[in-house]
Amino acid sequence: MADTHSLELLVQALRCLPGVGVKSAQRMAFHLLQHDREGALRLSQALQHACSSVKHCTMCHTFTENDICPTCEDPRRDRGLLCVVETPADQAAMERTGAYKGLYFVLMGKLSPLDGVGPREIGLQKLFERIDATEQGERVVREVILATNFTAEGETTAHVIAQGLKTRGVNVTRLARGVPVGSELEYVDLGTIAHALVDRR
Amino acid sequence: MADTHSLELLVQALRCLPGVGVKSAQRMAFHLLQHDREGALRLSQALQHACSSVKHCTMCHTFTENDICPTCEDPRRDRGLLCVVETPADQAAMERTGAYKGLYFVLMGKLSPLDGVGPREIGLQKLFERIDATEQGERVVREVILATNFTAEGETTAHVIAQGLKTRGVNVTRLARGVPVGSELEYVDLGTIAHALVDRR
Ligand SMILES: [Zn+2]
Ligand SMILES: [Zn+2]
Repeated sequence: MADTHSLELLVQALRCLPGVGVKSAQRMAFHLLQHDREGALRLSQALQHACSSVKHCTMCHTFTENDICPTCEDPRRDRGLLCVVETPADQAAMERTGAYKGLYFVLMGKLSPLDGVGPREIGLQKLFERIDATEQGERVVREVILATNFTAEGETTAHVIAQGLKTRGVNVTRLARGVPVGSELEYVDLGTIAHALVDRR
Repeated sequence: MADTHSLELLVQALRCLPGVGVKSAQRMAFHLLQHDREGALRLSQALQHACSSVKHCTMCHTFTENDICPTCEDPRRDRGLLCVVETPADQAAMERTGAYKGLYFVLMGKLSPLDGVGPREIGLQKLFERIDATEQGERVVREVILATNFTAEGETTAHVIAQGLKTRGVNVTRLARGVPVGSELEYVDLGTIAHALVDRR
C-alpha cells in the first residue's frame, strides 16, 4: 500500500484482532482512512480508555472498573449460589434470563492445554478458595452451578471443576442439556435430542 | 458484559470495522482486554497516527504522507502511461509484478450507485482533466490502462471510463482476462476459459 509508513503500521496493528489476517487488515485500514476517520479516532480513544480503566473484579474475576463489581456487591444476591461461567458475555446471557439471583465466578477462559491454558490461567485455585470460605464456621456457598459452554473444552472444564469439588461436600449442578425452547424436534440435531432424553425431568 | 461503560464503548467502537458485528466486536474486546492490552494500545496509537498523517496524493489520489506520492514524483516513470486501479492494494499488486513503469490514477473505490458511489466519488472529473493535460500543445498521456477488478462493479467502472475517453483520441486498453499462470485448465472455471479464448493472442 504505497510507501506510507503509518498506514503499514496500522495494517500490522489491526492484526492483533482475533481472526484478522493481512487481507482483512488492509481492507479495514482502507475503509477507515477512506470512509470513516471519525470512527477510527473513536476506536483509538475507546481502546486507550478501556485499557486504562477496565480491570478484574477481585471476587468473581469479571471485567469491572471498580475493585469489586456491582453484581458481587449487590446485597440482594443469594451468596449461597455460585454460578461458574467462561466469559463476561456468558454471564450477561445468564443475567438476561432474569432467572438467576446468585453470584458468579467468571473463569475468563476455559481449559485448553494445547493453547497453554491450564487450571492456573482460569483461576481454579481462587475458585476453590472461594467455595471453601466460611462464615461463623459455616460454608457460605451451598451450591455451585457449572454453566461452562457445551463444547468439548467447556465440558472438560466443568468435569475438572466437578472433580475438584467432589470431596468438599458442596452441591454441584450442571445446566441441563436439551431441546431449545421454541424449536421443533424435526429440526433439532440428534445429539441434542439424545441428551434431552438422558436429562429428562 | 457487566456494567463496564468503557467496555461497552469499546464494543460499539469496534463495530466501525467492516464486517464486524456485535458478536465479533465482543469477542475482539474480550481478547484484547484479557490477552493483549499491549496490542490494543499499539492499535490505538496506530489509528491516531494514521488519521493525522495519511492524506491523498494530489496527482493520483493514493494514500500518502506527502502532497505528492513518491511514485508520482519518480522521474524514471513513464508519464505517457496511466494505469487506473480501484485501491492502493491493487496498485501495490501491480507494482509487485515489476512489469509496469508508468504512473497511476487510484479511484479509491468503484462505481456502485446502490451504495451512493457515483463518478464524483471516484474522481472521474479529475481523471479526465489529468488525461487532457498538455505540455507544449501535446497530450502527456498516450495510453490509459484500465486495471479495475474483473467484478461486475469493476467492469462497469472500466466501461464508463472507456466511454468518457472515446472522443478524446487517447489509446485505452484493458488488462487481459485469462487463465491464471501456473493453473491447469481442468481446474479453471468455465467463464475464465471462455474469456481467455476471446482474448487469445
Ligand atoms: Zn464480581
Ligand atoms: Zn501519486
